[in-house]
Amino acid sequence: MNLAILFGGNSYEHEISIVSAVVLKKVLNKEAFFVFCDEEREFYLIKTSNLNAKTFSSKAYKKEKKLVLKQGGFYFESFWGAKKLDIKCVINLIHGRDGEDGKIAALFEFFNINFIGPRLEASVLSFNKELTKLYAKSVGVKTLDYFTLKKGLETNFKPSFPCIVKPVRLGSSIGISVAKNEEEFNYAKDVGFEFDDTLLIEEFKKDIKEYNLAGCMIADEFIFSIIEEPKKKEFLDFEQKYLSFCGHNELIEANLNEDLKEKLKKAFSKIYNPLFKGALIRCDFFIIDDEVYLNEINPNPGSLANYLFKDFNATLKNLVNSVKNETKIKINYSFLHSINGQKGKL
Amino acid sequence: MNLAILFGGNSYEHEISIVSAVVLKKVLNKEAFFVFCDEEREFYLIKTSNLNAKTFSSKAYKKEKKLVLKQGGFYFESFWGAKKLDIKCVINLIHGRDGEDGKIAALFEFFNINFIGPRLEASVLSFNKELTKLYAKSVGVKTLDYFTLKKGLETNFKPSFPCIVKPVRLGSSIGISVAKNEEEFNYAKDVGFEFDDTLLIEEFKKDIKEYNLAGCMIADEFIFSIIEEPKKKEFLDFEQKYLSFCGHNELIEANLNEDLKEKLKKAFSKIYNPLFKGALIRCDFFIIDDEVYLNEINPNPGSLANYLFKDFNATLKNLVNSVKNETKIKINYSFLHSINGQKGKL
Repeated sequence: MNLAILFGGNSYEHEISIVSAVVLKKVLNKEAFFVFCDEEREFYLIKTSNLNAKTFSSKAYKKEKKLVLKQGGFYFESFWGAKKLDIKCVINLIHGRDGEDGKIAALFEFFNINFIGPRLEASVLSFNKELTKLYAKSVGVKTLDYFTLKKGLETNFKPSFPCIVKPVRLGSSIGISVAKNEEEFNYAKDVGFEFDDTLLIEEFKKDIKEYNLAGCMIADEFIFSIIEEPKKKEFLDFEQKYLSFCGHNELIEANLNEDLKEKLKKAFSKIYNPLFKGALIRCDFFIIDDEVYLNEINPNPGSLANYLFKDFNATLKNLVNSVKNETKIKINYSFLHSINGQKGKL
Repeated sequence: MNLAILFGGNSYEHEISIVSAVVLKKVLNKEAFFVFCDEEREFYLIKTSNLNAKTFSSKAYKKEKKLVLKQGGFYFESFWGAKKLDIKCVINLIHGRDGEDGKIAALFEFFNINFIGPRLEASVLSFNKELTKLYAKSVGVKTLDYFTLKKGLETNFKPSFPCIVKPVRLGSSIGISVAKNEEEFNYAKDVGFEFDDTLLIEEFKKDIKEYNLAGCMIADEFIFSIIEEPKKKEFLDFEQKYLSFCGHNELIEANLNEDLKEKLKKAFSKIYNPLFKGALIRCDFFIIDDEVYLNEINPNPGSLANYLFKDFNATLKNLVNSVKNETKIKINYSFLHSINGQKGKL
């Protein structure tokens, strides 16, 4: 089906995305193209035999075939002129900035390339944790109470401790701290403001139960993954969180009654439909007193959360066949003709 | 200062954008490059002498120099190979889809091109009228009450009449109707759903006072335009709304007391800062019982609302000198090295 996997990007999760692509290569039951976006945002077609850490850390990828994005696809130079890479669909596997903030969605819509991943609006709403909360509320899904702090704007806000301090825009756990007192809070703010101009503060609930559910919609039907109860320490750091999709962590299927499972699926559906059509996403929820709260949306989960699906390859194939881009608008210039007729000025 | 004006786009306002560029050419006190994005989203450099309606309606633009977007700028083929167009900054003058939905912002951030216009997040929030309301509320600016209808989802919602029915995502007045009874409402829904899968319904207030205020932020200071009270009929249609920036309509400066002018500027500031930094926007407000309500945000107003500014060319020059793109993230591959050390698996 001529899939391509796009990974890398100018993102704090650039390296995570490389890991994600390597894992996906092992999982896929078909060959695919691997398209790397380097820190300068140039594209390279990486031979699968070279898809390993050293290719990137040594910058050897620069010897691979360079690709240019134009209308309809990725092109490369050949002896016979520019040729188009024969791709039916691209999986957007860039995590964090570029991949999840809407840039890649915009590029693919603009250049008319079929892709799996969040669309522009979905990207912007899931990339910003405050917008995620506003959106969740608008579709009837609860989230935890929060407060935002903006860099340079003084405020009298005093959190209750312990609290969790998060840069409003980054994916993964980068820049996030738990603060148990004022001193730790001030430090947490300094750390957070290194990464973003807005911080989101929530009460830190130590023993809160967290559940992850992934899924996608194919022809108006939801395909859900199993519900995972992620292992955690105080909270997951960068490395722990992502080594999970390499298969090094054990998967724990959540022990929940049917009623709560249904509540999670219902909340997922409200979040997903129709905003996230075309993407396979993972939603991370809390359950408090039998009520479901959305924690965050991962619109490009690590290695597409393949380990959560019973038949990942079949799901992916169906999803690829169902995605479509915006319809093009036809321009007929009737308006210009009409002004011209009236004014003769243009 | 080597400005470029980008116009056109695959948008219902494609032709409006051409008018907008022609008007801006007349207003600017310096030469500029005019870059046209056609309905197929290919770029052309239009000679200023050819910047007239016929060039576009007859498709003669296809004989102009073709441009390709790559890292750092627009490139064209020459006898000596690919050359970069010498541009310091691009004004995004594409209205509606592509220009105001975030695609152009994403392209320019990705390809590292300086531009005037809304950034990605600002685009998505101002392009969708429901998100605009959620955002306005989050920064403490009032909007009118509303209800949304989603295509294909039945609901018992009955509006009170008269009501106004708007596609949630389009700019300008396309697809908008006023309904005075159930029959008109059903027709208005059919019209609206031709353009969007979500409609926003508000009470239609016939004699409501509308005020437009444009502005931008340069080095932490706001530059405001005069406050305009737009002429209107029942509501402005496509043609009336836009002929205004050709200078065919008379400008009416609003007759408001200082207190209300300050309230408008305060609401504008809350909306603008920091989300719209880098853009010159126009906010359209209502005033009801001396309270300010945001109606909509025009992040790329027609011809940059030049007619509202006392010294438009000076404002533009200062804005051009102040815009900057995202900072690039430096990738050092320390994480890949660390996993490699631990697992030797990548």
